[in-house]
Amino acid sequence: MDTQFLSQYKEISEDPSFIERLQVLSLVIFDVDGVLTDGSLFYSGSGEEVKCFNVKDGVAMKLLPKWGVDVGVITAKDSAPLRKRMEDLGVKHFYPGCHDKAAAFKDLQSKLNIKSNNIAYVGDDVVDLQVMPLVGVSICPSDAHLVVARYCDVRLNVGGGKGAAREVADLVLASKMPLEKAYDLAMQPEFESKQN
Amino acid sequence: MDTQFLSQYKEISEDPSFIERLQVLSLVIFDVDGVLTDGSLFYSGSGEEVKCFNVKDGVAMKLLPKWGVDVGVITAKDSAPLRKRMEDLGVKHFYPGCHDKAAAFKDLQSKLNIKSNNIAYVGDDVVDLQVMPLVGVSICPSDAHLVVARYCDVRLNVGGGKGAAREVADLVLASKMPLEKAYDLAMQPEFESKQN
Amino acid sequence: MDTQFLSQYKEISEDPSFIERLQVLSLVIFDVDGVLTDGSLFYSGSGEEVKCFNVKDGVAMKLLPKWGVDVGVITAKDSAPLRKRMEDLGVKHFYPGCHDKAAAFKDLQSKLNIKSNNIAYVGDDVVDLQVMPLVGVSICPSDAHLVVARYCDVRLNVGGGKGAAREVADLVLASKMPLEKAYDLAMQPEFESKQN
Amino acid sequence: MDTQFLSQYKEISEDPSFIERLQVLSLVIFDVDGVLTDGSLFYSGSGEEVKCFNVKDGVAMKLLPKWGVDVGVITAKDSAPLRKRMEDLGVKHFYPGCHDKAAAFKDLQSKLNIKSNNIAYVGDDVVDLQVMPLVGVSICPSDAHLVVARYCDVRLNVGGGKGAAREVADLVLASKMPLEKAYDLAMQPEFESKQN
Repeated sequence: MDTQFLSQYKEISEDPSFIERLQVLSLVIFDVDGVLTDGSLFYSGSGEEVKCFNVKDGVAMKLLPKWGVDVGVITAKDSAPLRKRMEDLGVKHFYPGCHDKAAAFKDLQSKLNIKSNNIAYVGDDVVDLQVMPLVGVSICPSDAHLVVARYCDVRLNVGGGKGAAREVADLVLASKMPLEKAYDLAMQPEFESKQN
Repeated sequence: MDTQFLSQYKEISEDPSFIERLQVLSLVIFDVDGVLTDGSLFYSGSGEEVKCFNVKDGVAMKLLPKWGVDVGVITAKDSAPLRKRMEDLGVKHFYPGCHDKAAAFKDLQSKLNIKSNNIAYVGDDVVDLQVMPLVGVSICPSDAHLVVARYCDVRLNVGGGKGAAREVADLVLASKMPLEKAYDLAMQPEFESKQN
Repeated sequence: MDTQFLSQYKEISEDPSFIERLQVLSLVIFDVDGVLTDGSLFYSGSGEEVKCFNVKDGVAMKLLPKWGVDVGVITAKDSAPLRKRMEDLGVKHFYPGCHDKAAAFKDLQSKLNIKSNNIAYVGDDVVDLQVMPLVGVSICPSDAHLVVARYCDVRLNVGGGKGAAREVADLVLASKMPLEKAYDLAMQPEFESKQN
Repeated sequence: MDTQFLSQYKEISEDPSFIERLQVLSLVIFDVDGVLTDGSLFYSGSGEEVKCFNVKDGVAMKLLPKWGVDVGVITAKDSAPLRKRMEDLGVKHFYPGCHDKAAAFKDLQSKLNIKSNNIAYVGDDVVDLQVMPLVGVSICPSDAHLVVARYCDVRLNVGGGKGAAREVADLVLASKMPLEKAYDLAMQPEFESKQN
C-alpha cells in the first residue's frame, strides 16, 4: 500500500475501509469522451476524424493488466481515431457505439464471470449513471458533471484527458503496493514495445 | 427546482425572482465561437476545416428540447465542421453565416411566434449585443468580453467551449426541477441513439 | 477614456501620463506565435499545416483600423494557414518569414512615414526585443518570456492566443473613449461582412 | 550567473552548490511526450499524424548549442510530425522509437565521450527513470508523474508543452551568465534563419 499517495483523497481519509474496496478490483471500465479525453470533439465536415488522447493514460491502460487488473472501454461514440487508439493500447474489452451502456456492461460482466464488487467504472456524465450503480467503485474526473460528482465514490484530482485514467491506475495500484514497486514493470524496455 | 444548484449564482441569491424569468423560457439561442467553442479557430490554408466542440454541450442541446425548450444557433461564421456538428445534434433552428444577428433573431422569433421574455440568448462578444436587448434573459460564458459581461443578466461559471451550453441547460432545467430528475431522460438508452 | 478599464493596469495607476502614450498610437504591430497564438505549433509530416488563432483577436484587428489605428504583423515564420488568416482579417501590412524583424519594422515605418512614438509593438519572445526599443509602447502577453516581460512597458492580463490582441485593442481604444462607444461600430451588421 | 532567475527555485535556495552542477552541463537530453508536448496525442485513424509542439521550446533547442551545450532527444515513440520538427530544429542526437532508453542514452554518451555529471535529462514519466539515475542532473516538468517528481533534482515551474524545454535552457544558461546576455545571440537576425 502507498499510504502517502492514498492519504490525499478525503474519501479515503474519512473512511479507511474504502481501501479494501479498491484492493479487490480486477476490472476497471472507462468511458471515453470526458474521461480519456477532455471532452473536445474535433469536427471536420465528415465528423470526428481526429481525437486527442493523453500519453499518461496509455501507461495506465497497459500497466493495469500486468498487475492482474483487466481494462474495458464502453462508449456511446465510435470513430476511426478511437478504434486506432484502443488497438494501439491493446484494449481487449472494447464496446464502441454503445447506446445502452448497462447492457454492454452486463455482457462484459457475464463474459468475464466477475462479481460487481470487483469492478470499477470511470465516467464523467449522466449516461454513465446507467452503469455506476452496478459496480463496486464508481469514479469520476474532477470536471465531471455535477450530478455524476454527487453520485461517485471518488472524485479524481485531475480532469478528463489530463491523465484521469492514469490517476485511476495509481489509485488502484496504490491500494496494493507502493507506487514505486507498481512501476518497476513500466521501467522495463519490454513495456514500451507497444505504443502508449 | 434545484435550490442547491441555483444558489451558486450570485445573480439569483441577490434576486430570487430571477428564477421566474428562467422558468418561463421556451427557447435558448446560442452563438458558436466563444460559446460552443473556446474561441479557437483551427486554420488550414483553406480556412476552418476543423472546429473543436465539447461533448458536454451536446447533451445540453439534445436534452433541452425533450423538456420543451427549443434550441437555436445564430453565428456570423459558416464552415463544413460547424454544419456537420449542428446536423449531428439535430439543431433545427440554425442560422450560419449570419452578419445581421438581430435580423436572424427576429426571423426566428416570428417563425416560432414566441414572446421575448420566453427567450434566452447566450453570447460572448460585442456582436451578440445586437440580440441581447431583445430577449428575456442574456447569458455569457465566464470569459466573455468585458463589455458583454457588464451587460448580461448571468455570467456562467465556465468559459466558452468548456461546457458553457451545458451550464445554461442546467440553469434552465434547475429552475423547473431537481437536476437528477432532469437527467432521468438522458439516462435512457434511446437518448444516445444520436451523436452528441 | 474608459477609466474603469484602464485602472486595472498597475503600469497606468503608477503613471497616469502613460495614457497619453497610448492616445497617440496610430499603428500597432503584432508578432504571431505566442501572441496571436498560444505558442502551439501543430506539426504534420510536412510542417505547419494548421495554426490555431482566436476569434476574439479577429475583432481587434478589424476594429482598430476603423478607429484610425493601422495594424501590422511581423513574424519569423510563414505558412499557408497564417497567410489565409491574415487575408481573412484584411491585414494590409504583413511581413511573413521575416528573420530580421528590425529591418521589416523600419521598412514599414518608412513606408507609412510615421513617428516611433505613434507605434506600439506586441511580442512575447526575445527576438521581439529587436523591435521593442524602436517603438513608443512595447507590450507583451502575460506568458511572455521573462526577459521580454522585464523589458516591456505593459504586460497584458491574458496570455498569447487567449485574446492578447483583443486586450491590446481594448487598451488602445480605452485610452481614447469608453469601450462601449468603441464597440458601437462592431455591433453594426456591416462589421461582420468579413470573416473574423 | 542570473541570481534573480535562479533564486525562484527552492532546490537552489536550499542548496546553492547545486548551481555548480548546472554550470558543468554540456549535454541536455529531452524526452518528447509530456516534455516537449503536453502529453496530447492527436489520433487519426492511422495514428499520430499531428503533434503539437511549443514555439518557445524551439528557441531553447537552437540556443543551447550556441552556448556549447549539446541537445539530444530520446523517445519511445516515432511519427512523421516528430521527425519533421526535430529536423526543423536541427537536433543532431535524435533517438526515436526507442524502447530501451538506457541503451540509447549509453550509446549517445559513449559517442560523445562525455561524463555523466556533464549531462542533464528531462523527462515526465516512469520510463524516464531508466535514464535519470545515470545523469548529473534530472529534471521534470511541473505536471510530471508523482513518482518522477519525487525522484528528480529539479521540478520546473511549467508543465510539458508549455515551454518546459525553454525553462531548462533558461536554468542552464542562468547558471553561467545573466539571461539578457544569454539571449543576445537569439536577437541576431541569423538566429531566425532556421524554423524554431
